[in-house]
Amino acid sequence: MVTITPVLLCGGSGTRLWPLSRKSYPKQFVPLVGEETLFQASARRLHGTGLGAGGLGFAAPVVLTNAEFRFIVAEQLGQAGIDPGAVLIEPEGRNTAAPILAAALHLAATDPEAVMLVAPSDHVVPDAPAFHAAIERGLGPVSEGRLVTFGITPDRAETGYGYLEIAAPVADGAPQDLVRFVEKPDAARAEAMFGSGAFLWNAGIFMARAADMAAAFRHHAPDLCAPVEAALDRARADLGFLRLDPAAWAAAPDISVDYAVMEKAGNLSVVPFAAAWSDLGGWDAVWRESGPDAHGVVATDGATAIDCRDTLLRSDSDRLEIVGIGLDNIMAIATGDAVLVADMRRAQDVKLAVAALKAKQAPQATSFPKVHRPWGWFESLVIGGRFQVKRILVHPGAALSLQSHHHRSEHWIVVEGTARVTVDDAVTLVTENQSVYIPLGAVHRMENPGKLPMVLIEVQTGAYVGEDDIIRYEDVYARG
Amino acid sequence: MVTITPVLLCGGSGTRLWPLSRKSYPKQFVPLVGEETLFQASARRLHGTGLGAGGLGFAAPVVLTNAEFRFIVAEQLGQAGIDPGAVLIEPEGRNTAAPILAAALHLAATDPEAVMLVAPSDHVVPDAPAFHAAIERGLGPVSEGRLVTFGITPDRAETGYGYLEIAAPVADGAPQDLVRFVEKPDAARAEAMFGSGAFLWNAGIFMARAADMAAAFRHHAPDLCAPVEAALDRARADLGFLRLDPAAWAAAPDISVDYAVMEKAGNLSVVPFAAAWSDLGGWDAVWRESGPDAHGVVATDGATAIDCRDTLLRSDSDRLEIVGIGLDNIMAIATGDAVLVADMRRAQDVKLAVAALKAKQAPQATSFPKVHRPWGWFESLVIGGRFQVKRILVHPGAALSLQSHHHRSEHWIVVEGTARVTVDDAVTLVTENQSVYIPLGAVHRMENPGKLPMVLIEVQTGAYVGEDDIIRYEDVYARG
Repeated sequence: MVTITPVLLCGGSGTRLWPLSRKSYPKQFVPLVGEETLFQASARRLHGTGLGAGGLGFAAPVVLTNAEFRFIVAEQLGQAGIDPGAVLIEPEGRNTAAPILAAALHLAATDPEAVMLVAPSDHVVPDAPAFHAAIERGLGPVSEGRLVTFGITPDRAETGYGYLEIAAPVADGAPQDLVRFVEKPDAARAEAMFGSGAFLWNAGIFMARAADMAAAFRHHAPDLCAPVEAALDRARADLGFLRLDPAAWAAAPDISVDYAVMEKAGNLSVVPFAAAWSDLGGWDAVWRESGPDAHGVVATDGATAIDCRDTLLRSDSDRLEIVGIGLDNIMAIATGDAVLVADMRRAQDVKLAVAALKAKQAPQATSFPKVHRPWGWFESLVIGGRFQVKRILVHPGAALSLQSHHHRSEHWIVVEGTARVTVDDAVTLVTENQSVYIPLGAVHRMENPGKLPMVLIEVQTGAYVGEDDIIRYEDVYARG
Repeated sequence: MVTITPVLLCGGSGTRLWPLSRKSYPKQFVPLVGEETLFQASARRLHGTGLGAGGLGFAAPVVLTNAEFRFIVAEQLGQAGIDPGAVLIEPEGRNTAAPILAAALHLAATDPEAVMLVAPSDHVVPDAPAFHAAIERGLGPVSEGRLVTFGITPDRAETGYGYLEIAAPVADGAPQDLVRFVEKPDAARAEAMFGSGAFLWNAGIFMARAADMAAAFRHHAPDLCAPVEAALDRARADLGFLRLDPAAWAAAPDISVDYAVMEKAGNLSVVPFAAAWSDLGGWDAVWRESGPDAHGVVATDGATAIDCRDTLLRSDSDRLEIVGIGLDNIMAIATGDAVLVADMRRAQDVKLAVAALKAKQAPQATSFPKVHRPWGWFESLVIGGRFQVKRILVHPGAALSLQSHHHRSEHWIVVEGTARVTVDDAVTLVTENQSVYIPLGAVHRMENPGKLPMVLIEVQTGAYVGEDDIIRYEDVYARG
């Protein structure tokens, strides 16, 4: 029986799945395929004991993310019923090498023999038992001190992935020595590789003992070691998160683990994985993984396809209906505040949409109307000349900061649950269908003392209703 | 100097411009091209004096509409600064013959010599002076007791319109005798007619003296006369509208004026009109009339086109951005609650979208989130399990009905203007940033006593927040 520690990388914020994936809330935290978010599904896939043929088990995961996403990570793991072993906060994005080394050093500090499995948190792997079996096949090389990577058996001549060349096609999924890494190919080269059977997709999933992983970094990427070690040594515990030291981290090279270590390592084994897999690298991949019908059509609940072929129609708002007529090879994705309509073959160009919206300073480029905070979330329902209406949800036990505003008064009407409201010196309980008025300038706080989520409607009136009109006096989440 | 009475037909509710045109608020009341609605532009085009070369002038228009649209008609004419001479309410839709006869009889009752110009209220005619000149050219035949129709000089071989054949092509726009009406042609026939120069589009615009129009009906469509005369005789004046008698009206044949009268009339003259014209019969027509750029792209303020050709991208919500990438011959129209994406060649099939949404009982098929009422409008901002939030606008001087609810309490927060609020026996003035609570069961009313629109946010809480939980005690608009 072997216990493996998942290392989940989820600091990324891709734009290729805009408008569902945005900088403020990227694709790994969104239910793109199925009910759970990709991050939750990734964590669940690497969770539990007594798995596989040999009693494979997983320890609590180590999660690497950034400061902005830390409460989303905590909330989504909580919903999935999974306790993280550690959540390491990257002060800024440094590609994959530095965070993987940080995880290896963090684990090696308590158990150098700990087996770590590094996985992105935005992949789709429908057959978890098949994946567990592949992990088990990799444990032999790991126990010999080798690094293991997983190579996906291609089902098409894909030009969007890098490849791993192995000595010969294998049927039994046994570990192979790596011949070499191959960059993303052109179409002809992809066809040739697909035909040969000796090339697997590089999925960016790695397994090794923590000490062996650290040793590989020391050998092949020594310039990463000092900054990452220092960032860990000076890390600061904060509300259950471990914040890596920003100054030290800033000195770490911004490089992928493939370039820094794996392409140079002589001791890399490849475990073939022949089941379905996707990195959901674009809406075309989401379309493929969502089970197109006989006409190639994927349409969600709020979407209706009429005489369409090879088309993705997706509504991600329960107040929005989308209808397609006579479309061929089109993808149309609608959220409450943005709609993308594109030729399916231009799936990799969705970043152009984000860039165009940034240029016109549209908030849709990077953020959602629903804004997530440590205490819950809020969304603006309507903004007028001198007013704004928000819906606010506060988690059980959570509290907003003690604050005041210069330019607005607020009416709060509780519509679900119970709020404890502080206005200057008075503290009152406000329950469903009760309201409270916060005069301009009053020092106030909203808390949820209950066991259920509390929802209130906030009506702001005043000459200025921007988010930056806020003076914070106390904040349990240590925000400015 | 001649004075003409415009007769504006605006009872229709087409579905081909869904999602912007819906049964509850159809295309003529929407600003589809330009700032004004089509109805306002139609009324303005037939308004004023001292026009044309000969001092053409227009009397106050006679408007034909239905009960549901009567307050929209009044509000939009008011915004345009045009007083209607009469607003005749059709109890139910009866195509074009019956309403035109009703207008003719209504006018002839006071002035049989009155010249009436019958026009749909959803056409686009950018060059109003050119239209006035065409009207002036038609006055000669009208004075001789003839019926005049206007034929649009085609600029393409259109298969979507019926045609009017004239004896020979004309350059000076002088009135011609009609040879015959031609049904919508196939493509080959359309090409041949376009090439010949002797065929004009039938725009459905007619001019005649009221008595001559009535006489034509008596001669060619006698079965229409008794019901329409009776409907007028028994019409009931109601808040400035003239409600035709429903029982009498129900007996009128449902037939177009072309079939009933014009195709049989021997005294029909055609005035050619060579300037731009469109009936906006589909989104392809809106695209054409909206001025496509060099790539054939039309993109509204909230829309961004990247590498698109011959494409219409339209956002009709100020909170919604739409982006198109690599599209060719596609139209995508987004409102706050619905998105249509279609092949441009399927413009005539948009009714299929409406039918599909009706079948799934989606409210988007027929109505908008913003609901217009005689007193103003409201829109639902969010509906939860036991609550709903609405924005409500009340026109100056207007009042909602005196009412109560069985299942909900309401919090009202005024955010613009001043409300006079009745709750049981108490009447209070509520101004910006003040709130009032309406307990479940309380008899209440909201009025705007001021000179500016009053906006308030209503937060409803209760086990049921449907529109039908309402008991009305008094209603100045005589609703049930």
